[in-house]
Amino acid sequence: MSGYDRALTVFSPDGHLFQVEYALEAVSRGTCAVGVRGKDTVVLGVERRTVQKLQDPRTVRKIALLDDHVALAFAGLTADARVLINRARIECQSHRLTVEDPVTTEYIARYIAGIQQKYTQSGGVRPFGISTLIIGFDLDKTPRLYQTDPSGIYSEWKANAIGRSAKTVREFLEKNYKEDASRDEAVKLAVRSLLEVVQTGAKNIEVAVMGTDRKLQVSLVVLNDVAVSKG
Amino acid sequence: MSGYDRALTVFSPDGHLFQVEYALEAVSRGTCAVGVRGKDTVVLGVERRTVQKLQDPRTVRKIALLDDHVALAFAGLTADARVLINRARIECQSHRLTVEDPVTTEYIARYIAGIQQKYTQSGGVRPFGISTLIIGFDLDKTPRLYQTDPSGIYSEWKANAIGRSAKTVREFLEKNYKEDASRDEAVKLAVRSLLEVVQTGAKNIEVAVMGTDRKLQVSLVVLNDVAVSKG
Amino acid sequence: MSGYDRALTVFSPDGHLFQVEYALEAVSRGTCAVGVRGKDTVVLGVERRTVQKLQDPRTVRKIALLDDHVALAFAGLTADARVLINRARIECQSHRLTVEDPVTTEYIARYIAGIQQKYTQSGGVRPFGISTLIIGFDLDKTPRLYQTDPSGIYSEWKANAIGRSAKTVREFLEKNYKEDASRDEAVKLAVRSLLEVVQTGAKNIEVAVMGTDRKLQVSLVVLNDVAVSKG
Amino acid sequence: MSGYDRALTVFSPDGHLFQVEYALEAVSRGTCAVGVRGKDTVVLGVERRTVQKLQDPRTVRKIALLDDHVALAFAGLTADARVLINRARIECQSHRLTVEDPVTTEYIARYIAGIQQKYTQSGGVRPFGISTLIIGFDLDKTPRLYQTDPSGIYSEWKANAIGRSAKTVREFLEKNYKEDASRDEAVKLAVRSLLEVVQTGAKNIEVAVMGTDRKLQVSLVVLNDVAVSKG
Amino acid sequence: MSGYDRALTVFSPDGHLFQVEYALEAVSRGTCAVGVRGKDTVVLGVERRTVQKLQDPRTVRKIALLDDHVALAFAGLTADARVLINRARIECQSHRLTVEDPVTTEYIARYIAGIQQKYTQSGGVRPFGISTLIIGFDLDKTPRLYQTDPSGIYSEWKANAIGRSAKTVREFLEKNYKEDASRDEAVKLAVRSLLEVVQTGAKNIEVAVMGTDRKLQVSLVVLNDVAVSKG
Amino acid sequence: MSGYDRALTVFSPDGHLFQVEYALEAVSRGTCAVGVRGKDTVVLGVERRTVQKLQDPRTVRKIALLDDHVALAFAGLTADARVLINRARIECQSHRLTVEDPVTTEYIARYIAGIQQKYTQSGGVRPFGISTLIIGFDLDKTPRLYQTDPSGIYSEWKANAIGRSAKTVREFLEKNYKEDASRDEAVKLAVRSLLEVVQTGAKNIEVAVMGTDRKLQVSLVVLNDVAVSKG
Amino acid sequence: MSGYDRALTVFSPDGHLFQVEYALEAVSRGTCAVGVRGKDTVVLGVERRTVQKLQDPRTVRKIALLDDHVALAFAGLTADARVLINRARIECQSHRLTVEDPVTTEYIARYIAGIQQKYTQSGGVRPFGISTLIIGFDLDKTPRLYQTDPSGIYSEWKANAIGRSAKTVREFLEKNYKEDASRDEAVKLAVRSLLEVVQTGAKNIEVAVMGTDRKLQVSLVVLNDVAVSKG
Repeated sequence: MSGYDRALTVFSPDGHLFQVEYALEAVSRGTCAVGVRGKDTVVLGVERRTVQKLQDPRTVRKIALLDDHVALAFAGLTADARVLINRARIECQSHRLTVEDPVTTEYIARYIAGIQQKYTQSGGVRPFGISTLIIGFDLDKTPRLYQTDPSGIYSEWKANAIGRSAKTVREFLEKNYKEDASRDEAVKLAVRSLLEVVQTGAKNIEVAVMGTDRKLQVSLVVLNDVAVSKG
Repeated sequence: MSGYDRALTVFSPDGHLFQVEYALEAVSRGTCAVGVRGKDTVVLGVERRTVQKLQDPRTVRKIALLDDHVALAFAGLTADARVLINRARIECQSHRLTVEDPVTTEYIARYIAGIQQKYTQSGGVRPFGISTLIIGFDLDKTPRLYQTDPSGIYSEWKANAIGRSAKTVREFLEKNYKEDASRDEAVKLAVRSLLEVVQTGAKNIEVAVMGTDRKLQVSLVVLNDVAVSKG
Repeated sequence: MSGYDRALTVFSPDGHLFQVEYALEAVSRGTCAVGVRGKDTVVLGVERRTVQKLQDPRTVRKIALLDDHVALAFAGLTADARVLINRARIECQSHRLTVEDPVTTEYIARYIAGIQQKYTQSGGVRPFGISTLIIGFDLDKTPRLYQTDPSGIYSEWKANAIGRSAKTVREFLEKNYKEDASRDEAVKLAVRSLLEVVQTGAKNIEVAVMGTDRKLQVSLVVLNDVAVSKG
Repeated sequence: MSGYDRALTVFSPDGHLFQVEYALEAVSRGTCAVGVRGKDTVVLGVERRTVQKLQDPRTVRKIALLDDHVALAFAGLTADARVLINRARIECQSHRLTVEDPVTTEYIARYIAGIQQKYTQSGGVRPFGISTLIIGFDLDKTPRLYQTDPSGIYSEWKANAIGRSAKTVREFLEKNYKEDASRDEAVKLAVRSLLEVVQTGAKNIEVAVMGTDRKLQVSLVVLNDVAVSKG
Repeated sequence: MSGYDRALTVFSPDGHLFQVEYALEAVSRGTCAVGVRGKDTVVLGVERRTVQKLQDPRTVRKIALLDDHVALAFAGLTADARVLINRARIECQSHRLTVEDPVTTEYIARYIAGIQQKYTQSGGVRPFGISTLIIGFDLDKTPRLYQTDPSGIYSEWKANAIGRSAKTVREFLEKNYKEDASRDEAVKLAVRSLLEVVQTGAKNIEVAVMGTDRKLQVSLVVLNDVAVSKG
Repeated sequence: MSGYDRALTVFSPDGHLFQVEYALEAVSRGTCAVGVRGKDTVVLGVERRTVQKLQDPRTVRKIALLDDHVALAFAGLTADARVLINRARIECQSHRLTVEDPVTTEYIARYIAGIQQKYTQSGGVRPFGISTLIIGFDLDKTPRLYQTDPSGIYSEWKANAIGRSAKTVREFLEKNYKEDASRDEAVKLAVRSLLEVVQTGAKNIEVAVMGTDRKLQVSLVVLNDVAVSKG
Repeated sequence: MSGYDRALTVFSPDGHLFQVEYALEAVSRGTCAVGVRGKDTVVLGVERRTVQKLQDPRTVRKIALLDDHVALAFAGLTADARVLINRARIECQSHRLTVEDPVTTEYIARYIAGIQQKYTQSGGVRPFGISTLIIGFDLDKTPRLYQTDPSGIYSEWKANAIGRSAKTVREFLEKNYKEDASRDEAVKLAVRSLLEVVQTGAKNIEVAVMGTDRKLQVSLVVLNDVAVSKG
């Protein structure tokens, strides 16, 4: 009972950082998010939480724009995510001002992961309870997809999933991923992979697509309109 | 016994933040508050606590004006609420001074939620024991209704309830909510939804209405005067 | 044993702040104090602790003047009270200097409650072990009576009691309170309500009355001189 | 075992501050001190600890001059007392410099009690393990006698006792105290009250007397020279 | 359970620093890395973690360049490593600016080990969960290979291994190491030693070679292409 | 086990400060030291610890000069003593510079005791594990002998002992002390009192004598040369 | 389990500082080091740890130069030692700059011991896990040998040993030490004393000699070349 309730994240005898692993549990209980990188496109898809009937879906979005050309989806604690998103947005602006260039996708992924790591090694704070998928286009028009987690690790992916049932979704992605997918194919893959695990009550999937114009287009996919069969 | 009594809010093995969940318990033990958004109107209703016979009801209000055009109702610890209200009011004024524009409703909801989140991740403090409903009109005369909770999440609603029996009230709201309700309809819905759960001793409901004039009108509804039947 | 003995006031699983509730216990073990608001008058009455034979009663007073027109009675830890009284007095003076107006009664009640709240949410301190009754006249000559408690709540009353047997006294007040009582009636009500619960050894009741002249008059009521019968 | 051994003085479930009560235990294990106020005189008497044969009695005194016209006797931890005495002496001097008047006896009693209170409410310190009796003459030549204790309470007395068997001594004082006692009568009362509880081995009582000349005269009363019979 | 979960790394009764030893466990669970020093060359080899099918291998590298002529491989927590790598890179640049010379390999190894030691002796932090192998060429064109570990020890080696099965690899290195190995021989030794322990799923080994030109060449060795037999 | 191992020295239920009493245990396990005040002389004697055969006795001295005319002997933790001695020496020098007079013996005894007290009341430190005997001559050529202990008490003595078997030595001193002893008599008394308790292996006693010339003379008394019989 | 794992080194009921004693355990598990003082020479000898086959022995040295004329050998935690060595080296340089004289051997021994003591009395740190032997020549060409330990004690010796089996080595030194040994005799004694306890696998002893030229000569003694028989 008392073993996990301490002021500092420390090693267990077999070399684990329990607070980090517990934070990963919080992530795995969040709604699922996927990212898919196509030829000239990169896609984020999130299972829309069974929004309560009277809730305005606009404020429960799990996808946030960090800068014109960089966006983030997360799984886990919404309030924690907002903190990281705010800090990342400020970093994007301050980077523009000091370096006179927009951030690269990797730069901001490393920045977010760095904050997450710091919260696993210092006293007086707990780790962030979120994983993120970060998409963006670099100046050379290469699409990028990064993942960060509560331990502060970041890594680049062609396609990946975080949150509830992430493992199942990732296996689906591995089976169905094609290199140099077109915009349509990438979107379809993202939606279909989420359909694998979508909860019975949920009706919606939110999809955000970025193309070579480096603009984010977000659209809502109402599930019974989707022209793909399950499995 | 000792498991919940620590200097820092941390994750449990299954990814919960217990202090936040316990704070939610404190909220669910507070008096109920509802918010309803109509066409050109937005309404807050609070079950008036069975005021003690000699108590001046003015100081036990659960509705507070943050700025001319933004108001807040809360459920939970009154003293905690005052701290958040004070800080929100100062932010409203300082926003006017620096940006030379009043805050939007979402801005101040995000600001309050941000403070609430900070108290869930740092050492030396406990989370705030309140949820809030925030109503307001933006410059474009759109009515707004937001909710925040102890975890620091905020979200927008057409109608919602917090505090004791919030779930029952929310279900009533879902059944009876109509889009583009008139001012009268919105007030009636708020009052009737509270009647669902009002405690036997309680006789009063306080209602605050904001219209396109962006002014708050607060009135007391003595229950046996209400022309609506229960259920 | 160890559950209540920590460096920070936090939530229990059912949403209680135990340190605050324990502080309320300290209050309920203090001598009783009542406040009664009349038409043009407001009265504080305190059960004079069975002063030891050789003790100078002047320094064990439970009633303190905060400014010319604002006074406070407390129940609970005397030494804690002195800290709050000192800070309130300084605030009254500094308010006069900066705003060039005396404080309103509500302003100083809110100020005291604000300090009390802060001691329930930060690490390294314990809550204050006192409740207060604050009386005063505002510039418009309205009499005021406020109560604050260890949680940091404040509220306005026509008549109220704090400390030992506060509940019994409050019931007596509810039964016997009349609106627009004269100065004499208000004093009598305060004294008689205390007689309800006065301890056998105690012989004295201290009464402080403020009228429209906004001056405090303190007098000692020796109990066998009181022309009222018990009950 | 672990219940009293914490970094902060907090409330027990029934509203007690245990560290303060334990500090009172340390006081009640210290040698006894009495104070008696006469007409134009005020007297401190302390049971001289059975000084070890080779010890110089001068440095084990329990009576200290704070300023020309204010003196203090204490019961409890000698080293703790020195800290309070030093701070009180500095306050007396600084008061003279800034206000250009000597402190009143009540001012310095309140000052000492204020320090003692602060050590019961903040983290990282323990309460002071002493009670004090403070005597002095104010500018209007009124003799004064105050008591402070580890909780930070101070109060004025005609006569009082602190330390070991303080209760017995206080009862003796109550039985034998006369108003407007002469210098001789006051001294005799102080000495005789201590004889009530003096330990068998102890042979000496130290007496400090202050008259209207506002000077302290300290003298040693060797017990078998005292012309008063026990009881 | 509670014995390893504290705010400060301290000695156990038999003189162990458990947090440091637990951090070593975290290291021994990381992927294996080897370093081999040849005549005019120094080599780092790391077992490429069985990268997930869709993961971009570029961001999961365990080899990092600290300065033009100094590189580091690590075993253990990736996010912790990034912190040390960042600080080492900054130190390399700041050393160039202040001393107007690049760092020596030993200087930067000592610097990294110094940070690691500090995290074993101060409160509020945990040790770093990584060991490192640092290679470089000093100005006199001597190849260097250093190791650091979570305790803050650093040491120089001809060849060494860290991470999972480090002991087995080190024994292989001891048996097969030849002084003054050519570039090819050194690379082959590094690869073959890793083959000893490589996990069944893993197909790749990443090799980084530095020659007298003081440039790092990184290449991927796909395992079934390697012309060496196991054992 | 856990009861004495805390971050702050606090009161036990019966008013004890355990850390202070445990520090006294550390003192009572140190080698014995005595002080004797004669007519125009004051003497310190310390049982020379059975110095290891190859140890240079110069650095294990238990007697230290604080200023020309003030010296100190201690019992307890040698390393702790050095801290106090250093701070006392600096205070002596700084006193000379600011007051333009050497310190009195009492001043420096009170200074040392004050530091010792501070370490019993603040968080984050433990008490000093030493008692001291301080000798000196004041400007009026009066010899002085003070004692301080871990609680921060200081007192003046004609003769006293600290450390192992201090009680036995003190009883011997009480039986044999003569007022106005000559230099020789004082030295002899110090030596003979130590012989009472000297450990079988120990062969040496170190004696430091200060006369009206206010200089310290230290000499070694090899035990079999002493012309006094035991007892 | 929990008794030794705390944020502050405090006294146990019988006056022990456990963290210091546990640190001594860490020392006694380190490789052995000896120091021997001759007529015009002073020698340090350390058992060379059975260096791993491929390890460069240069970086595992247990002997470090602090200044031209002062050197140090240690037993215990290598990483802790580096911290003390760095701080001592800086002190040596800063002493030269401010006092315009090199440090004496005793000065730097006292300095190192002072740091070690501070880590036994303050919160938030643990004691250093090392003992040291410090040799040097003072300006008057006197050879010096000091020892410090984790408690912060320092002492001067003719010959001494620290680390594993220190007691056995010290007994050997006591039996065989001769005053005014020549350089050769001193070296031989150091080597032979280490042979007493050298571990079976170990083949080497490192010897550092300083003569009246105040320069340190370090040499490696391969054991089977030594012309002395065991015992």
